[in-house]
Amino acid sequence: MSQFWSPIVHDLEPYVPGEQPKVANLVKLNTNENPYGPSPKVIVAIQQAADDSLRLYPNPDSSKLKKTLADYYQVKPNNVFVGNGSDEVLAHIFNALFQHELPLLFPDITYSFYPVYCKLYQIEYQTIALGYNLSIDVQDYHQPNGGIIFPNPNAPTGRVLALAEIETLLTFNTDSVVVIDEAYIDFGGESAIALVDKYPNLLVTQTVSKSRSLAGMRVGFAIGHQDLIEALIRVKDSFNSYPLDSLATVAAIAGFEDQTYFEQTCQKVITSREELVVGLSQLGFELIPSTANFIFTKHNEHNAEDLATGLRQQGVIVRHFKQDRIKQFLRITIGTDDENQRLLAVLKQLIIQ
Amino acid sequence: MSQFWSPIVHDLEPYVPGEQPKVANLVKLNTNENPYGPSPKVIVAIQQAADDSLRLYPNPDSSKLKKTLADYYQVKPNNVFVGNGSDEVLAHIFNALFQHELPLLFPDITYSFYPVYCKLYQIEYQTIALGYNLSIDVQDYHQPNGGIIFPNPNAPTGRVLALAEIETLLTFNTDSVVVIDEAYIDFGGESAIALVDKYPNLLVTQTVSKSRSLAGMRVGFAIGHQDLIEALIRVKDSFNSYPLDSLATVAAIAGFEDQTYFEQTCQKVITSREELVVGLSQLGFELIPSTANFIFTKHNEHNAEDLATGLRQQGVIVRHFKQDRIKQFLRITIGTDDENQRLLAVLKQLIIQ
Repeated sequence: MSQFWSPIVHDLEPYVPGEQPKVANLVKLNTNENPYGPSPKVIVAIQQAADDSLRLYPNPDSSKLKKTLADYYQVKPNNVFVGNGSDEVLAHIFNALFQHELPLLFPDITYSFYPVYCKLYQIEYQTIALGYNLSIDVQDYHQPNGGIIFPNPNAPTGRVLALAEIETLLTFNTDSVVVIDEAYIDFGGESAIALVDKYPNLLVTQTVSKSRSLAGMRVGFAIGHQDLIEALIRVKDSFNSYPLDSLATVAAIAGFEDQTYFEQTCQKVITSREELVVGLSQLGFELIPSTANFIFTKHNEHNAEDLATGLRQQGVIVRHFKQDRIKQFLRITIGTDDENQRLLAVLKQLIIQ
Repeated sequence: MSQFWSPIVHDLEPYVPGEQPKVANLVKLNTNENPYGPSPKVIVAIQQAADDSLRLYPNPDSSKLKKTLADYYQVKPNNVFVGNGSDEVLAHIFNALFQHELPLLFPDITYSFYPVYCKLYQIEYQTIALGYNLSIDVQDYHQPNGGIIFPNPNAPTGRVLALAEIETLLTFNTDSVVVIDEAYIDFGGESAIALVDKYPNLLVTQTVSKSRSLAGMRVGFAIGHQDLIEALIRVKDSFNSYPLDSLATVAAIAGFEDQTYFEQTCQKVITSREELVVGLSQLGFELIPSTANFIFTKHNEHNAEDLATGLRQQGVIVRHFKQDRIKQFLRITIGTDDENQRLLAVLKQLIIQ
C-alpha cells in the first residue's frame, strides 16, 4: 500500500501462473508446455536472424507475421491481430471489446486470468456454472450480456465443444462479442476460425505457446472481423507500438511454415494422451474427456492436493487448483512417453501406499 | 466504429511511431536507433539460447535480469521492474501511479506517447511550456499535481537537465510520483538512479533500445522504491504474466555484461554527434545542445518539412514533427560517420539550390 498508487492498484488480484522451477531434472507437467521442442527450422531461423539488425525496431505492424497467419487460416491480414502472447491479446480484448453495461459471461471453472482482467478494466462479469461432468452448455449463455468468452477446449477441464455448438451460440448471440480462446485447439478440436467470415461478432484467439512449442517466445494472435481487429489495434497502439520483438516474429513465422513438424508433434501428443488416459484409468482415476495437451483427473480414494505433494516430492510437478468444485482434480500436462511413464509409476506408488 | 467496441476505443488517438521502411539501402536517421549493432557477445548468447528450451515459458519474474540490473545500478532486485520495451513499462506506470485527481504534468514538447497513455487510462494532464531555447525549468513544476514525467534528456529536443536540478524538483515535489524517462541518458547525461534511495517517489525508466543497440528485442525497465515497483508488478501480473520472452531476457543480460563494448559504442556516438554538430553549424543550422543520440535542429532560411522531403528523395530519412513550436525543426539520429557525411552532403546540396 502506498499513497502514490493509483486507486485501482489496491484492489487488483493478480494472476498467479504455474511454477517455473529453477531446479533441473524435474518432470514438469504443470504449465501445459509441449514436451517436444520447436521445429528445428525455427531454431535455425532464429540463429540466422540474430545479427546487427537487432539494433533496429521491429516492424510495428508485424505485417509479415500477419500475412503468414492470414494465408495459413485463409483470411485477410486485416482480420489478424498479433500480440505478446495470447495473454496480452486477451488483455487488449477485455479492454477494447468487453467494457459494456451488461456483464461479461464466462464459465465458473475456466482460465483464471479472466476475472483478473475484469478487475483490471473494471468489467462486471457473471460466471455460468459448468454442467454435467464439467461441460459447457451453450444454452446457458442465452441471456443479455456484454460479451462471452471461454476457451475451447476449456481449461483446466480439457473438454471441447463441437463447432456446431459454437455456431448455435453465435446464432442466438448477435449483439455482443463472442471470444473463443483456442490455446489448445490443435490437439484435436475444430477451430472456429472457419466461422469468422459469417459472424462479425466472433473473435478467435490462439497462441504459439502450445502446439508450436514456443511458450518461451510469447506470440499470440486473434482472428475476426476487421472492425474487431481495428479496436484491438487502437488499444495496442495506445499502449506499446512494438509488442513483438524481431526474433519472436521470425520464430512464429518459421513455426507456421513447418507444417509437417507441427502435425507430427501434435499427433504424438494426442497419442501419448490416449495412452496416459488408459494408464490413469487403470490406477482408478476418473478422467474428463480431453481434447487438449493436458488431462483433468481425480481419484475418488485419494486427496488431490496430497497426490500433488507426493508427486512433487518425487520430482514430478502437476497443477492443483484450490478452487471449489475442482479441488479434488489434478491438471496434468502430457509429457514425453518417458515422463508419462514416470508420472504413472509415482502415482502407482502413492496410491498403493 | 462498431457497436461492439468498448466506449473508450472510439476516443483513442494512438501513437504513431517513426517509419520502419521496407526498402533497404536507406540512410535511416529517423527513429534514434544505435548505428552500431549489439555486442557480438549478445549475438552469441542469443544463438546459444535458441534451443529446445524455447518450448518452456520464461521465468515470469525475470529474476535473473532483475538481478543483473540491480547489481549494475547498485540497487536491490525489488527496486527493479522490467517490461516489454520501455513503452510497456511507461504504460504500466501511467496506469499504476498516475491515476489521481490532480493532473499529471509534463512538458508541452516531449515524448508524444505521454498524452496517448493519458487518453488510454483517462488521466487528466497539464502541459508545461518549455522555456528558453526549449529547456525544462523545474520551477515551472512547483504546483499541485498528480505526478510529473519527462524524459532526461528530453525528446525530441535532446536537452539534458543536471542531476542537481532533478534533485531540486524532488525536494519540493514530495507528494506525487516523479518519473524520469532516461531512454537517452547513456549518451552523456547523469542518471537519477543515484537518487532513488533518497526519494521514495522517484522512478527512473531506461531501455536497451538505444545505448545497448537492442531496439529489436524490446526490453525496458524502471528503478525506484519497492512500493512503486510493487504497484507496477500488480498491474503487470493482471495483464500479462510473461511480457519478456526468453531470448529478449538473454540478450538484455548479455548486453549489460559487456561494459567495454557499451562504453566504446556510446563514446563513438557522442564523438560523431559533436562532429555532426560542427558540420550542421557550418551549413547554417541552429542546434539545441544535445546529450542524446540525436540532434534537434532548424535552419532559418529553409523550411524543415521541405528539407525532410528533399532528404527522403535522396534516400536519407529524418523525423519531422508537425507540432506547433517545433515544425521548423528536424530530429536527426546520429548515424555512422559515413551516414552522417551522406546526410551533410545531401543537406548541403538542398541548401545551396
